[in-house]
Amino acid sequence: MLPKALDYESLNENVKKVQYAVRGELYLRASELQKEGKKIIFTNVGNPHALGQKPLTFPRQVVALCQAPFLLDDPNVGLVFPVDAIARAKHYLSLTSGGLGAYSDSRGLPGVRKEVAEFIERRDGYRSDPELIFLTDGASKGVMQILNTIIRGEQDGILVPVPQYPLYSAAISLFGGSLVPYYLEETANWGLDINNLRESVVQARFKGITVRAMVIINPGNPTGQCLSEANLKEILRFCYQENLVLLGDEVYQQNIYQDERPFISARKVLLDMGPPISKAVQLVSFHTVSKGYWGECGQRGGYFEMTNIPPQTVDEIYKVASISLSPNVPGQIFLGLMVNPPKPGDISYDRFVRESKGILESLRKRARIMTDGFNSCRNVFFYFYKIYSHSWVNGSGAMYSFPQIRLPPKAIEAAKKAGKVPDVFYCLKLLEATGISTVPGSGFGQKEGVFHLRTTILPAEEDMPAIMASFKKFNDEFMDQYEDYRGYSRM
Amino acid sequence: MLPKALDYESLNENVKKVQYAVRGELYLRASELQKEGKKIIFTNVGNPHALGQKPLTFPRQVVALCQAPFLLDDPNVGLVFPVDAIARAKHYLSLTSGGLGAYSDSRGLPGVRKEVAEFIERRDGYRSDPELIFLTDGASKGVMQILNTIIRGEQDGILVPVPQYPLYSAAISLFGGSLVPYYLEETANWGLDINNLRESVVQARFKGITVRAMVIINPGNPTGQCLSEANLKEILRFCYQENLVLLGDEVYQQNIYQDERPFISARKVLLDMGPPISKAVQLVSFHTVSKGYWGECGQRGGYFEMTNIPPQTVDEIYKVASISLSPNVPGQIFLGLMVNPPKPGDISYDRFVRESKGILESLRKRARIMTDGFNSCRNVFFYFYKIYSHSWVNGSGAMYSFPQIRLPPKAIEAAKKAGKVPDVFYCLKLLEATGISTVPGSGFGQKEGVFHLRTTILPAEEDMPAIMASFKKFNDEFMDQYEDYRGYSRM
Repeated sequence: MLPKALDYESLNENVKKVQYAVRGELYLRASELQKEGKKIIFTNVGNPHALGQKPLTFPRQVVALCQAPFLLDDPNVGLVFPVDAIARAKHYLSLTSGGLGAYSDSRGLPGVRKEVAEFIERRDGYRSDPELIFLTDGASKGVMQILNTIIRGEQDGILVPVPQYPLYSAAISLFGGSLVPYYLEETANWGLDINNLRESVVQARFKGITVRAMVIINPGNPTGQCLSEANLKEILRFCYQENLVLLGDEVYQQNIYQDERPFISARKVLLDMGPPISKAVQLVSFHTVSKGYWGECGQRGGYFEMTNIPPQTVDEIYKVASISLSPNVPGQIFLGLMVNPPKPGDISYDRFVRESKGILESLRKRARIMTDGFNSCRNVFFYFYKIYSHSWVNGSGAMYSFPQIRLPPKAIEAAKKAGKVPDVFYCLKLLEATGISTVPGSGFGQKEGVFHLRTTILPAEEDMPAIMASFKKFNDEFMDQYEDYRGYSRM
Repeated sequence: MLPKALDYESLNENVKKVQYAVRGELYLRASELQKEGKKIIFTNVGNPHALGQKPLTFPRQVVALCQAPFLLDDPNVGLVFPVDAIARAKHYLSLTSGGLGAYSDSRGLPGVRKEVAEFIERRDGYRSDPELIFLTDGASKGVMQILNTIIRGEQDGILVPVPQYPLYSAAISLFGGSLVPYYLEETANWGLDINNLRESVVQARFKGITVRAMVIINPGNPTGQCLSEANLKEILRFCYQENLVLLGDEVYQQNIYQDERPFISARKVLLDMGPPISKAVQLVSFHTVSKGYWGECGQRGGYFEMTNIPPQTVDEIYKVASISLSPNVPGQIFLGLMVNPPKPGDISYDRFVRESKGILESLRKRARIMTDGFNSCRNVFFYFYKIYSHSWVNGSGAMYSFPQIRLPPKAIEAAKKAGKVPDVFYCLKLLEATGISTVPGSGFGQKEGVFHLRTTILPAEEDMPAIMASFKKFNDEFMDQYEDYRGYSRM
């Protein structure tokens, strides 16, 4: 009997090669345990609402009204919706041709793309062209489309930071390209060393790979670092010299929990540099409504903006976007609201600011509780916390905490016996003992013999002490079990 | 200066090969004209709300409440929402973990997948397993994912009906596979001749192509035919013999405007056939909230259901779906509402039925006006209308009308001189003269020397007579200009 086209052995090999740890073995086991009735704390995905974060009221009011346009004529509408939400809903409906039920242009609604361009202009101080902004069903879909446009085959390499968010490795596998890793330096606050980058490109060339693009995740996921202006300049100069497209994953731009180093966009730094670099380096940057203090993950709203991309290529990207007709329209409205929030003087302004600040401040507090909690555990720590104790909060930027776990050799042996990668072994034990569902560092890539785990900082503030206590108890018992002499895995 | 990775000449060749006529040259020209202030009637895409179709009230009420869950505690909510919509919103919110702002499982909310399974069971009379149902951002995304899973390279062929909906040709190009066309017989009511199919497979093999899957679009787009049970049986037997996966695009299953031939799903026919065929043929069927009388295109809600697909493959499909985290959650709720609409006795039932029936009846009327209108035009007609005058309405099934245009030789010459495909030439002239934006038949594929155009039947009923009059006037003038002797292009 011949295998059929959808039998495992005859599938597209690129599909089989894909690895996606965020919803990998740990997540699947957690889902099983949940089905069996165990209480699971899902900290594997940056999914704030799933852990109790309340949505911002104003944008939800606007989108609810857009979904129910017949309410706009209801004499009672003012009893349940404020006037500025009603006005905003009318504004967005006027930007559609037929409301939320009509496909938009495949690039998204022109009026929302204009709002995005205005936001970028305010942020960077440079004009932005709505025609070079495409709205997407979340940032991931945009990243995938751009990678698909770039990758021609396995000889095409994409520089990706390690540790990285596995969207990149997964998408590169799916499109049949080659991931070229560059290591972030844990001992240097997860900074990016240009010599290291250069070395990665040389090694890739040696293997016959043409490096065509470089990914930066800024602020970092899972590492939480925020790139300095000087570092961004080096990166852009490097892209110029090596003829690389820069893909700037900037979805955590609102998730900054320290004041010393604000977020600066790759685009601003590029344009600040002036010609020839500012006219030459091709840049695509990504943003979303899923992160920040919005956390509207389930709405799937995002955009990418293109700089220095020739019109013919923009047309090709438009054409491919057309195949699936249009991104979801409610997600587009959320994006419009994110880049154009209530202004001082609007009825909903105070409430909006109060809610936003409340979320950001709570995230800061949670980052601190978690960082301190991890640092109080045996063999668990943020390496650079020891060095830069003044900047503790860098240990948990974006929405994640990525502590190093020094696994005793006996634990590594036990993992090998169980047929597991050591950090997967540790995280599975943690899950079974406490219900805390994390992602092992190996899912993001790390140096040989160094182990981490990633958790989000998203569990509710009031639950956080108990979660950290439960983690500490598990970790103590784990270390007691496997650490019968003073030997650590090496850093 | 070396080309950069996002310069046109260095893009992924598969991206460049993609053609997508629905938003192709005609659409782009129409958009330009609209910008210049011309009134455009967009009949190029099945986008009912863009042409004035009102959304069904009940599902919009439910989704609006899900977006604004704080309203559920508002003492005034009963003044603007009926109690069954409130109850339904609570039901759907209880199926999420964190409301619409939280990512769902990458396959979609388990509770909605259960509602879909129950719908399929009621429709087909066979059990359906929610674990084999994946929710998607519209049907197109699902089709693309399955094709990406199947296609390994250009030696892999996919049988696609011609004329076809260009999603298929575009996605096959993008994933680097080979489209193997099979022709639908216009003279046989756009039916499917198995000998023709067999011939296509033989020819493809001769070129070194392994045919791995077959697409059917039922009811047809752009042709509007509804496949008979006997025809579906032949197709399934053929898939069994040739070891093909059947991809059943059944998004128009609610758009049937005649009573003689009801829609029957490929799955029902397959399971009716019994073993060995019912246990062997791999089938994936697709559905959406964008069509039917819902027309909620902008919400991007869809699903696919898998039959006879091994668990290991289902896991692979799940893994790849995970890369972009989850389909948009509001779209999932719309899908739940579509498969589980209000029931007799519910407060909103009567209104829901009245609205649904109103839309379907109006679509029927519009199909008739359009069919009769085209048939009254010189050199424009539905071939089978002449044969099957009792079943006029088959000429405009699904949401489309696909009349044949017999272009005079002089028009074909003029088109060649202008560097245009003849039907593109005709449709461009139509657009410039009348503002009616159609898709030339060549965008869907057709036999050499035979020309068509596709319009949707979606313009408002009251506008339809004027649109058809405007078409007739244009067509008369066109034919006057180019038809100076009695020579037609051959059928």
